[in-house]
Amino acid sequence: MALKQISSNKCFNGFQKVFEHDSIELKCKMKFGIYLPPKAESGKCAMLYWLSGLTCTEQNFITKAGFHQAAAEHGLIIVAPDTSPRGCNIEGEDESWDFGTGAGFYVDATEEPWKTNYRMYSYIKDELPKLINANFPTDPERMSIFGHSMGGHGALILALKNPGKYKSVSAFAPICNPIQCPWGKKAFGGYLGSDLSKWEAYDATHLVKSYPDSHLDILIDQGKDDQFLSAGQLLPDNFIAACTEQKIPVVFRLQQGYDHSYFFIATFVNDHIRHHAKYLNA
Amino acid sequence: MALKQISSNKCFNGFQKVFEHDSIELKCKMKFGIYLPPKAESGKCAMLYWLSGLTCTEQNFITKAGFHQAAAEHGLIIVAPDTSPRGCNIEGEDESWDFGTGAGFYVDATEEPWKTNYRMYSYIKDELPKLINANFPTDPERMSIFGHSMGGHGALILALKNPGKYKSVSAFAPICNPIQCPWGKKAFGGYLGSDLSKWEAYDATHLVKSYPDSHLDILIDQGKDDQFLSAGQLLPDNFIAACTEQKIPVVFRLQQGYDHSYFFIATFVNDHIRHHAKYLNA
Repeated sequence: MALKQISSNKCFNGFQKVFEHDSIELKCKMKFGIYLPPKAESGKCAMLYWLSGLTCTEQNFITKAGFHQAAAEHGLIIVAPDTSPRGCNIEGEDESWDFGTGAGFYVDATEEPWKTNYRMYSYIKDELPKLINANFPTDPERMSIFGHSMGGHGALILALKNPGKYKSVSAFAPICNPIQCPWGKKAFGGYLGSDLSKWEAYDATHLVKSYPDSHLDILIDQGKDDQFLSAGQLLPDNFIAACTEQKIPVVFRLQQGYDHSYFFIATFVNDHIRHHAKYLNA
Repeated sequence: MALKQISSNKCFNGFQKVFEHDSIELKCKMKFGIYLPPKAESGKCAMLYWLSGLTCTEQNFITKAGFHQAAAEHGLIIVAPDTSPRGCNIEGEDESWDFGTGAGFYVDATEEPWKTNYRMYSYIKDELPKLINANFPTDPERMSIFGHSMGGHGALILALKNPGKYKSVSAFAPICNPIQCPWGKKAFGGYLGSDLSKWEAYDATHLVKSYPDSHLDILIDQGKDDQFLSAGQLLPDNFIAACTEQKIPVVFRLQQGYDHSYFFIATFVNDHIRHHAKYLNA
């Protein structure tokens, strides 16, 4: 599990780095971004994992979100992986922008030709944290997760499927109920086949119904003018209804005038980092 | 001088917009970014012009610098133009990354085949502010300028050649003495020909020697690990020596460990906006 450093840039007295490694789960080379706050020079830090959305790589969040100052101040290591396996030369992987390359959807595929490489769920859950903990000054017990759009879906399902693993979870404009929206149907159909019980195992709105306790404060920001909200791709109402029924606390903020872009994320990312720091640095 | 809106994204309660227009000076379509802070909804705002560096467009600063929160708080309109004429189909314009497209150098070219379109100095000095003042809630009397690398050169020469026009000036890793560095020699030779007196008219270190008064506080941040500093492209020492001789106040901060990237800019952009707000909102 050797790491190759691709770049290193000082930022707010810490370092934004990008590394490449050979992934065992995904059977390809993967890159991830990692921000090491100034505190990482002298002690162990809690970790906050960021999952990006459709079409993104490890670059979008680290160049556009403007999170470095807050991460430096709260002493958090921020890990921003790529969204999908790369360079696998699977037939059709580059045909759509919302399936295949750039659209891993954070599931473990069970169908050909995807099941060999498209194992983003296990990669994010196990392989990447193991790699991060082995190579950086982390406290493995203190870990949280957040993400955007497809990555908001990823953050929610990882937290809901693994009670206790993450101290907190939050999302920007997450795909809340993928089994009910066009993006999710296309992705889950392709990666998981036609058995709907396999789809439900990766759907936040379904998963929350069997979440065992209420020790999870969820923060969601959603732009009210988000084109994908009105297109029925995100379906936060379904998720909120399920949380309400289950008595899981959700702070859902519908932000007037904001869209699906990184300008929206940049505006509220400090609030999210503060939300996570409350649990990670408690 | 009609404006066509290309994009509009809400950000920190204001709007980051991009417009396109037909430039009279440059004889081509040009884009610029403009951030309208919340204050612009109810009153006139001061303006801060940002000039980007080599290879950049209007996108780099608005997506990567993380300046929106500070601009919103200080109520400043931030204008980020493109760096060079586009789509002029001049032979050789795309041959080098440091000359032609993406490398306008903020001069008015006098040589063929550049002199028809490459008039970035006049575009930034006259045409663009006129357009901005005609279309947005600005106070035309309150205007400042800053930039990065080639754009830092641009900001310094615009301020030094036009005493009183800008309330303040600052720069990140500016090309301080272009007539003495490889980038500048290539650009000025191409755009201005072999007459060195024409080169001096666009060189900050030369211009400061005849600057008429000392009512200009200059702030410069320079990464100590900037590869272009060690390559002799930036030459801040020459500029500081000229300022010292002329008794022009310069705050020059050599930032340990920082490079030439937008991670460096993002780290210190709040300080620069505060520097300008002090003069613009006085």
